[in-house]
Amino acid sequence: MRFFLTLSYKGTLYHGWQIQDNAPSVQAALQAALSTLLGEPTEIVGAGRTDAGVHAARYVAHFDTVSQKPVDQDFVYHLNAILPKDVAVHAVRQVTEDAHARFSAVSREYKYFIVSEKDPFRTETACYVPQPLNMKKMNEAAEILMEYTDFASFCKLHGGNKTTLCRMKASVWVKSGNTLIYTVSADRFLRNMVRAIVGTLIDVGRGRISTDDFRHIVEAGNRAAAGTSAPPQGLFLTDVQYPEEIFQYIQNQ
Amino acid sequence: MRFFLTLSYKGTLYHGWQIQDNAPSVQAALQAALSTLLGEPTEIVGAGRTDAGVHAARYVAHFDTVSQKPVDQDFVYHLNAILPKDVAVHAVRQVTEDAHARFSAVSREYKYFIVSEKDPFRTETACYVPQPLNMKKMNEAAEILMEYTDFASFCKLHGGNKTTLCRMKASVWVKSGNTLIYTVSADRFLRNMVRAIVGTLIDVGRGRISTDDFRHIVEAGNRAAAGTSAPPQGLFLTDVQYPEEIFQYIQNQ
Repeated sequence: MRFFLTLSYKGTLYHGWQIQDNAPSVQAALQAALSTLLGEPTEIVGAGRTDAGVHAARYVAHFDTVSQKPVDQDFVYHLNAILPKDVAVHAVRQVTEDAHARFSAVSREYKYFIVSEKDPFRTETACYVPQPLNMKKMNEAAEILMEYTDFASFCKLHGGNKTTLCRMKASVWVKSGNTLIYTVSADRFLRNMVRAIVGTLIDVGRGRISTDDFRHIVEAGNRAAAGTSAPPQGLFLTDVQYPEEIFQYIQNQ
Repeated sequence: MRFFLTLSYKGTLYHGWQIQDNAPSVQAALQAALSTLLGEPTEIVGAGRTDAGVHAARYVAHFDTVSQKPVDQDFVYHLNAILPKDVAVHAVRQVTEDAHARFSAVSREYKYFIVSEKDPFRTETACYVPQPLNMKKMNEAAEILMEYTDFASFCKLHGGNKTTLCRMKASVWVKSGNTLIYTVSADRFLRNMVRAIVGTLIDVGRGRISTDDFRHIVEAGNRAAAGTSAPPQGLFLTDVQYPEEIFQYIQNQ
């Protein structure tokens, strides 16, 4: 039986989602907790990597089990009790056997948070930019991204991506109090892509480059053309979407 | 010249506001930064102590300076640049020479945050209580506090308070999503008082004691009668109020 877990995690103390030698990962923490609870070695497959220090407000992962133990809300409660406090499971749902947390995903959404005033409560969950940022220009540049499909300029070299094509669905800044929030969604993202985009959009906001420069950077197809990556602590994976069919399984039983 | 500073701090890494030997304090961090910036040894006096791990969303402190350096918004910016990232200064305002951050305060407000679902982003800024809490009963008990003026039952023994009398101005729970927020304000608070009250109100919410029991605890005048203190990470000092007169000084110049 295959299950999807919906979870959230604060990435500060992890070297990202993915299991690594000699470094803590969210995946390793979850596999350890699931294996304990199910009483069998359990592997978990996530919707994608996240960089060290990046957070997830809504992340999806799948696992298979042959255990006879019920996988329900009680299970979620007990899983949370043994997981570290910076990883929380919110729901578990049975899916079709071929559903895959990474390959079945049709859309992902990220948000990047910038605070314009020093905030002692958000040092690990937002990026502090004291310089004035021109929101209008940043939104003009953000909108330019919607016209393109090749994001090689924002792709980490040797990042292991086979193609650099992504279908953009949203790219917009909104301001709420002293917080600037960038929302970007697409069918897929390349490694380091959102942080590279945000870093370059900040350059636009600070007036270091124009929106025309920004367009040239997108068209250059070369990571060296773009700005430096924005720091990880401002970035949240906020949603992963799947086709409704994969959740039908449980209802047919 | 005397100045009031308005600041906020995340208390997680501090042993409270007050300077202590061999333990980091917010007061010590501020004095070091102020002394550096003003170029003279500077003492700072706070509105009151806060326990280790307790936060302040709005805290007020005063300092005197004979330095010729201007104390203005630029000063605030530079002060923030040298302060640790978990302490932020928001404003500076000249006050009358006899204004005192602690003794002139006429009202203080605290808020206590409880989350009913595990939240990886609030492990240091809220208390997680997975058990169901009866909000109606907790508000009935909270309201009982408004009838009393002696809070010896919620005062740390040998806490150094000369009297245990406080004038309550508000005591109420509100629910917002999966967060329960207790707001309490009074002219003054005794050491550990809010956390002792919240711990005992949680006992009411969980049905361990009745609202009648709660009333008897208040009337007992004995700390041993009340519940255990709620953990520090859920508690925020959120406001300190002063009479308007102390701020007149700057306008008369």
